[in-house]
Amino acid sequence: MSITPAVRAILANYESDNPGVKANLARILMQGRLGGTGKLIILPVDQGFEHGPARSFAVNPDAYDPHYHYQLAIDAGLSAYAAPLGMIEAGADTFAGQIPTILKVNSSNSWATGVNQAITGGVDDALRLGCSAIGFTIYPGADDVFDMIEEIRELSAEAKSVGIATVIWSYPRGGNLSREGELALDVGAYAAHMAALLGAHIIKVKLPSAHIEQKDAVKAYEGADWSAQSDRVKHVVKSCFNGRRIVVFSGGAAKGEDAVYQDARDIRDGGGNGSIIGRNTFQRKREDAIAMLDKLMRIYKGEE
Amino acid sequence: MSITPAVRAILANYESDNPGVKANLARILMQGRLGGTGKLIILPVDQGFEHGPARSFAVNPDAYDPHYHYQLAIDAGLSAYAAPLGMIEAGADTFAGQIPTILKVNSSNSWATGVNQAITGGVDDALRLGCSAIGFTIYPGADDVFDMIEEIRELSAEAKSVGIATVIWSYPRGGNLSREGELALDVGAYAAHMAALLGAHIIKVKLPSAHIEQKDAVKAYEGADWSAQSDRVKHVVKSCFNGRRIVVFSGGAAKGEDAVYQDARDIRDGGGNGSIIGRNTFQRKREDAIAMLDKLMRIYKGEE
Amino acid sequence: MSITPAVRAILANYESDNPGVKANLARILMQGRLGGTGKLIILPVDQGFEHGPARSFAVNPDAYDPHYHYQLAIDAGLSAYAAPLGMIEAGADTFAGQIPTILKVNSSNSWATGVNQAITGGVDDALRLGCSAIGFTIYPGADDVFDMIEEIRELSAEAKSVGIATVIWSYPRGGNLSREGELALDVGAYAAHMAALLGAHIIKVKLPSAHIEQKDAVKAYEGADWSAQSDRVKHVVKSCFNGRRIVVFSGGAAKGEDAVYQDARDIRDGGGNGSIIGRNTFQRKREDAIAMLDKLMRIYKGEE
Amino acid sequence: MSITPAVRAILANYESDNPGVKANLARILMQGRLGGTGKLIILPVDQGFEHGPARSFAVNPDAYDPHYHYQLAIDAGLSAYAAPLGMIEAGADTFAGQIPTILKVNSSNSWATGVNQAITGGVDDALRLGCSAIGFTIYPGADDVFDMIEEIRELSAEAKSVGIATVIWSYPRGGNLSREGELALDVGAYAAHMAALLGAHIIKVKLPSAHIEQKDAVKAYEGADWSAQSDRVKHVVKSCFNGRRIVVFSGGAAKGEDAVYQDARDIRDGGGNGSIIGRNTFQRKREDAIAMLDKLMRIYKGEE
Amino acid sequence: MSITPAVRAILANYESDNPGVKANLARILMQGRLGGTGKLIILPVDQGFEHGPARSFAVNPDAYDPHYHYQLAIDAGLSAYAAPLGMIEAGADTFAGQIPTILKVNSSNSWATGVNQAITGGVDDALRLGCSAIGFTIYPGADDVFDMIEEIRELSAEAKSVGIATVIWSYPRGGNLSREGELALDVGAYAAHMAALLGAHIIKVKLPSAHIEQKDAVKAYEGADWSAQSDRVKHVVKSCFNGRRIVVFSGGAAKGEDAVYQDARDIRDGGGNGSIIGRNTFQRKREDAIAMLDKLMRIYKGEE
Repeated sequence: MSITPAVRAILANYESDNPGVKANLARILMQGRLGGTGKLIILPVDQGFEHGPARSFAVNPDAYDPHYHYQLAIDAGLSAYAAPLGMIEAGADTFAGQIPTILKVNSSNSWATGVNQAITGGVDDALRLGCSAIGFTIYPGADDVFDMIEEIRELSAEAKSVGIATVIWSYPRGGNLSREGELALDVGAYAAHMAALLGAHIIKVKLPSAHIEQKDAVKAYEGADWSAQSDRVKHVVKSCFNGRRIVVFSGGAAKGEDAVYQDARDIRDGGGNGSIIGRNTFQRKREDAIAMLDKLMRIYKGEE
Repeated sequence: MSITPAVRAILANYESDNPGVKANLARILMQGRLGGTGKLIILPVDQGFEHGPARSFAVNPDAYDPHYHYQLAIDAGLSAYAAPLGMIEAGADTFAGQIPTILKVNSSNSWATGVNQAITGGVDDALRLGCSAIGFTIYPGADDVFDMIEEIRELSAEAKSVGIATVIWSYPRGGNLSREGELALDVGAYAAHMAALLGAHIIKVKLPSAHIEQKDAVKAYEGADWSAQSDRVKHVVKSCFNGRRIVVFSGGAAKGEDAVYQDARDIRDGGGNGSIIGRNTFQRKREDAIAMLDKLMRIYKGEE
Repeated sequence: MSITPAVRAILANYESDNPGVKANLARILMQGRLGGTGKLIILPVDQGFEHGPARSFAVNPDAYDPHYHYQLAIDAGLSAYAAPLGMIEAGADTFAGQIPTILKVNSSNSWATGVNQAITGGVDDALRLGCSAIGFTIYPGADDVFDMIEEIRELSAEAKSVGIATVIWSYPRGGNLSREGELALDVGAYAAHMAALLGAHIIKVKLPSAHIEQKDAVKAYEGADWSAQSDRVKHVVKSCFNGRRIVVFSGGAAKGEDAVYQDARDIRDGGGNGSIIGRNTFQRKREDAIAMLDKLMRIYKGEE
Repeated sequence: MSITPAVRAILANYESDNPGVKANLARILMQGRLGGTGKLIILPVDQGFEHGPARSFAVNPDAYDPHYHYQLAIDAGLSAYAAPLGMIEAGADTFAGQIPTILKVNSSNSWATGVNQAITGGVDDALRLGCSAIGFTIYPGADDVFDMIEEIRELSAEAKSVGIATVIWSYPRGGNLSREGELALDVGAYAAHMAALLGAHIIKVKLPSAHIEQKDAVKAYEGADWSAQSDRVKHVVKSCFNGRRIVVFSGGAAKGEDAVYQDARDIRDGGGNGSIIGRNTFQRKREDAIAMLDKLMRIYKGEE
Repeated sequence: MSITPAVRAILANYESDNPGVKANLARILMQGRLGGTGKLIILPVDQGFEHGPARSFAVNPDAYDPHYHYQLAIDAGLSAYAAPLGMIEAGADTFAGQIPTILKVNSSNSWATGVNQAITGGVDDALRLGCSAIGFTIYPGADDVFDMIEEIRELSAEAKSVGIATVIWSYPRGGNLSREGELALDVGAYAAHMAALLGAHIIKVKLPSAHIEQKDAVKAYEGADWSAQSDRVKHVVKSCFNGRRIVVFSGGAAKGEDAVYQDARDIRDGGGNGSIIGRNTFQRKREDAIAMLDKLMRIYKGEE
C-alpha cells in the first residue's frame, strides 16, 4: 500500500503518534473507493444498543445479521465499519483484513435514566479482534461528562500505547443545554474542540445549525453570516486544531436522499473529511444503500 | 467426544472465541440426552439467594442439599448446572467432570432496596471449580444497568481470555419500565439483543408476551401478527444476531406441566435453543421432575 | 494431631477447599476441650469497636488488656479467639500457636450513621499474624448489603487462595426489615443460607425467634410447629446446605446463666456446631466465666 | 544508641511489628531530651492546612519558613516533628537525620463542606523523605468515618510492611455527636480505643472533659469520680489496651502557660506518654517556646 | 547550559527532589529571555477547554492553530508553554526541544454543572510528549476539593518519581466562598499555601484584592496596610514557605496594557517569580502580543 500525498499530509498532523497508530489511521484512509483521497465514509451500526433491534432492523430484516453490515461496508467500498463488541465479534474472522473496524467501546440505550453511557469494550478487545480504532461517545454538557472524559482519557492512552487509534463521538447533551442548543453552532464547535483537546484522532460530530446557544459566545460569532451549512462545517473544522484533525459528520435519522447528498456537498465544501452514515444506509434496501453510498463517494471525490 | 454437525454449526458462529471457550461451549452442547442436537436444558439453582431457602426448598426438603441438584441434573441427562458460589463449591469434587457447571457470579435477594445485584463470584472461582461458564444477570431499564454492564464486560473479557464462556441472564426491570413492560415483546427482544452486543455466548431471557411497551417501537412491530408464542420466540432469536447466538428461555414460577410442555414446543418451533428450568423441576418430587425433563427433552428432539 | 472421624466428616464437606484452608479449619475443630467432637466455642472480642471500651470492659477491668482475652480463651479450653486487628496484634507473639485466631476484618461502631461496617483488616494481616481465619459481618436487608457482599467475596477469594478460612457473621438489619424481623426464623435461615452461598466455611447467626417476617415466606413455614428453639436451630442448620457447613450461634447481650445453658442445649439438640460467646464471658469475673464455659462445653459434649 | 529499659518495655508491647517499625518507634522514643524516658513531645505543624498561613504564622512571622519548625524541634530537644508533605519536603535534606519526622498524610481545611480529610501523602513519600512514621486523622462519629478508617487501614498496612510506624489522630466529630460530646470522657476513650483497634502505634487524642455523652455509656462510668483530669487521662490510657500503646495528648488552641503545664502534669500523673503541642509553641516567640518546652520536658521527667 | 546563581538558589529550595525534577525546573528557569534571572513567564492555552474555541480564538483566528501558540512562546522568548493534551500533541514533534512544555492534566468547561475538573492527561503522557511538568487545577473551597487534592497527590507523586515537575493552579471557588472572597487576600494566600503543602514546585494563583473573607482571619491581617498590590504579592509569596517555592500570578481576562504592566511591576516588587499570561497575549495580534511580552520581560528584568 503506497500512501498518497493527501493521506501523507493528514498523517503528518499526528505528530505525537507512534507508527502503530499512524498505520491504523492509514489503513482507514487508504481503504475503499475513497482510499487515498483524504476523505472517508464510516458505517456505524450501534443502533441496536441505542434503539433496540426492531426499530433498527425491522425495516430491512437482512440487517439483523451482523455479517450484513460487514458485507455492505466492504461491497460499497467504505473506509471503515464501526460497531459494539458483539457485532464485531460476530464477523471478526469471516471478514478479517477486508475492512478496518472500529470497536465502539461505550453505548447507551433507550431506557437510560441518566445522560451517560456504559463501557462495553476495551483496548484488549480491540487488539484481539484486529480493530484499527476504538470509538467512544462523550456528552459535553451532561452532569456526568467529567466521568466520561476520564474514561476515554484512560482508554485512549492505553490505545495509543498499543497502536490503536481513537475516534470520539462528541454529542452535546444534558445538563443546562437546551434541545435546540444541542445542535447549535457554538456548541458543536466547542464539542468538536473538546474532542480534539482530549487527543482524538478522528472526531465525529453532528452537522450544526446556525443557532448560537451560549450568551457568552454570541459576540464571537457576530458579524459573520452562518446561514450556509458549508461555512458552519468550516468553522467546526477550524475548531479542530485548524484542520489538523480528521472530522466526520453524522447523518442523523434516516431522511430523504437529496438531503443526504446536500449534507455531503456541504461537508466537502467546508473542508470536512467525510461522513459517518448508519441508518440512512442499512435502513434502505441493500441496492439502494449501495447506490446512495456510490453517489456520496462521488460527491466526496468531487465528481458530483 | 466427536462434535456433531449441528453443534459444529453453532460453534462456527463464535468467530472470535479461542479454542478454550469453544471447548467449554462444546462441553455443554454435547452433554446429556440433548448432547449433539444443538438444543440444551440448564438447571439453575439460585433461588436460595433470590427467595431464601424455605420458599425454595421447603416443598421438597431434599433440595436443601446442594448434592441433590447436581445429581438431578446428571440423572435427568441435562446439559449444565448453574448455581452461585457456595452451591457449586459444595459438590465441586463429588461431581467433578460429570456435568458442565455455570458459576452464577451475581445475585440479588428478596430484601434488596435497589434494582441491582451483588457480585458473588469471579473468573478465578470458575477456574478453580472447573466451571465451563460464568452466568451474570443484567437488568436492562434499571437505574444501575450501566454499572451492571460494566461489571459483566470486565468479567466476560477476563473469562474469554482464559477459555470460560459467558451466559447472560437479561431481565428487563426497574427505571421507567412498567410491570407489563418487563415481559413485552419489544423489551424482551431488545434485552436479548443487548446481551448479544455485550458478547454473551449464551443468552437467557423470559418468554415474551405480545405486548409492545415502547411507543417508539410500535411502528416496527405493526403489520405482523404476534399472537403465536413461537413467532415471538423467533423474533427474539432473530434479535440475537439472526440466530448466531445460543438463546434459552426461562420457565418462570412453578406452573402446570402442560404449560411447561407448550412453552418448550414454542421455543423449539421458534428456533430457540432450549430452556433454563429451575423451580419447575426441583420444587417437584424428584421422580416427577425427571419425568417432566424427560418429556421436555423429547419435545426438543422433536419426538413429541 | 490425629484428626477424629467427627472432624474428618465435617472437613469432607468442604469439597473445593485446598489443604491450607482445611488445615486451618482442622486447627479450630481440634483445639481445646471440644477438640475432635465437631463442636466449637469461639470467644469474640469486638465489643470495643461496637460499644466502646467502658461499656465493654468497665464491669471487669482486667478485660481492658488484650492479653486477658487470649488467656481466657486458652485457659477455658475454647476453640478459637476472634478479634479486630489491634487486639490480635497486641498478643500475637505472646500467644502464638496457643490458640487459633480469627481476624475480624470489618467493624461498625456506636456512632455509625449508616447500616454498614468499615474494613479494618485484610488477608495479608491474617497471614502475618498467623490467624486461621478471617471474620466478616454482613447485614442482609441493609441498603449497603451488596457492597458488603462484594467486599467479603473479594476477601474470601483471596483468603481461600492462601489457605485462610472464612467466617461470616450474618446479621439481618436495616432496609425494610422490622426490629422483630431481624430475629425472625425465616430471616435468620435466609441470612444463614446467604452466608453459605457466599462461600463461608463457618456461619455465625443469632438464635432465631418463632416469628415469620416475610409474607411470601409464610406458606413455606405453615403446618409446622416452630415453638421449640431446637427445631428452629435445626431449620437454620438445614438452610446451610443441609448441614454441610459449620454453623455457630451467638449469645447476644449478657444474660442469666440458665438462659445461656438452655441456648447451648438447644443448639446442640438442633444440630448446631456451637456458640460464639463474648459479653457473657468477659463481662463476668474470670472464674465465673471459666466455670460457665466449662459447663457449656460439657453440654456440647453431651455430659449435661 | 543503646535502648533504655523504659523504652525496651514499651517496644515489647508492639508484639506483631517487624524490626523496621520498632526501630522507628525507638528513634522517636530515644530522641531529644526525653529520649529514653518513655515520654515524648511531638511538634506538629499542620495548622497551615487547617487554618491557613496567616492565622497560623502571622503572630510569629519567622514561622512562615518550614526550616523554622525543624530547627525549633531540634533546638528544643523534642522527640519528633510532624507536618504535611510540602513542609517536610522543604527541609528534608537540610535536617536529614537530625530529628525523626512524621508525615501527616491527610488534612482538612477551613473551607471543608464535609467532615472528612483529603489524603495528601503516602507511604512512598514517607520512605523517600526518610520519615519514621505516617500520621493520619480519623473523625469517629462522622458520616464518612468508615471511609477514613478504610484509608488508614490500607496506608497503615503498607507502612507496617516497610517498617514505617503509624500515628492516628482520633478526633470525634460530626454525625450525631454534640459539640460538648466531642470532648466527652466516654467519647475520647472510645476514640482512643478505636485507634488502638485500628493498629496505631501512637495514639493522639484530646484531653477529655468529665462529661459523659452517650446514654448507653452512663452506667459504665457511674460510681467513679471523674473530676480529676489525671484520672481521665488514666482512663484513656487504660482504653488503649491497658497501656500497651503510646498515647499522647494535644494541647489545643494557644492558651496560658500555666494551663499548659498543668495539662502536662495531669498527662504524666495519669500515665500518658506525652504531648503533641503545636500552636502553643510556634505561635510564641522562639525563646518563649523553647523555655516552655524546657519546662514541659522537666515536668515529664518528674523534675517539676 | 550553565545554571546561574539566581536559579541555583531557587533550585536549592527543592530539597527533596531528584535530579530529574530539578533539571526540568532548570530548563524552565534557564529558558528564553528571562532565562537565568529567576523570573519566568508561561504561556497557557487551555481556554479552548474552559470557554470554547470561538470565544478564545475568533478575535485572532490564527490562534485556532496549535502551532501558533508554540511559535508565539518561542518567538517571544517565554519560559514555558502550558496546554491540554491535544494541543501539546499537535506540535510535540515540530517544536520538540525548542521550549519546555507543561501538560495541563485536568480541565473544566463552560457547561460544567459542578465545581470540579476532569482529568485529561497523565504522567505517561507528559513523558512521551517530552514535557517538563504537569499542570493541575484545584478549587479550594469547592465541595469536591478533597477529590481534586487526592488526584494531584497521586499524579504529583508519580511525576516526582520520574523527574517531572508539578505546577498547581490554585483557584478558590465554590462551597461557601463568596464571589468577592475568591479574590480575597486571606483566601489567595491560603490557596497558595495549600498548593505548597501539596508539594507543588510552581504555584499559580490570581493577584489578590485587599478584601479579607474569613472572619477568623481578620485578626491576623489587622494592623497592616494591604492597599498596595505589591504588599499583597509579598504576603502570598511569604505564604509559600517564605519564598521557598516559585509563585507565578495569572493575568485574568484580557485587559488594558497598562494594567498588565502594572501587575507585572507589582509582582516583581512583591518578590513574585512571574506571570502566566494567556488571553492577554493570544487574543491580541501577534506583533502586539510580542511587543507586550517584550515589555513585560523588561519589567521583570528591572529594565522598566
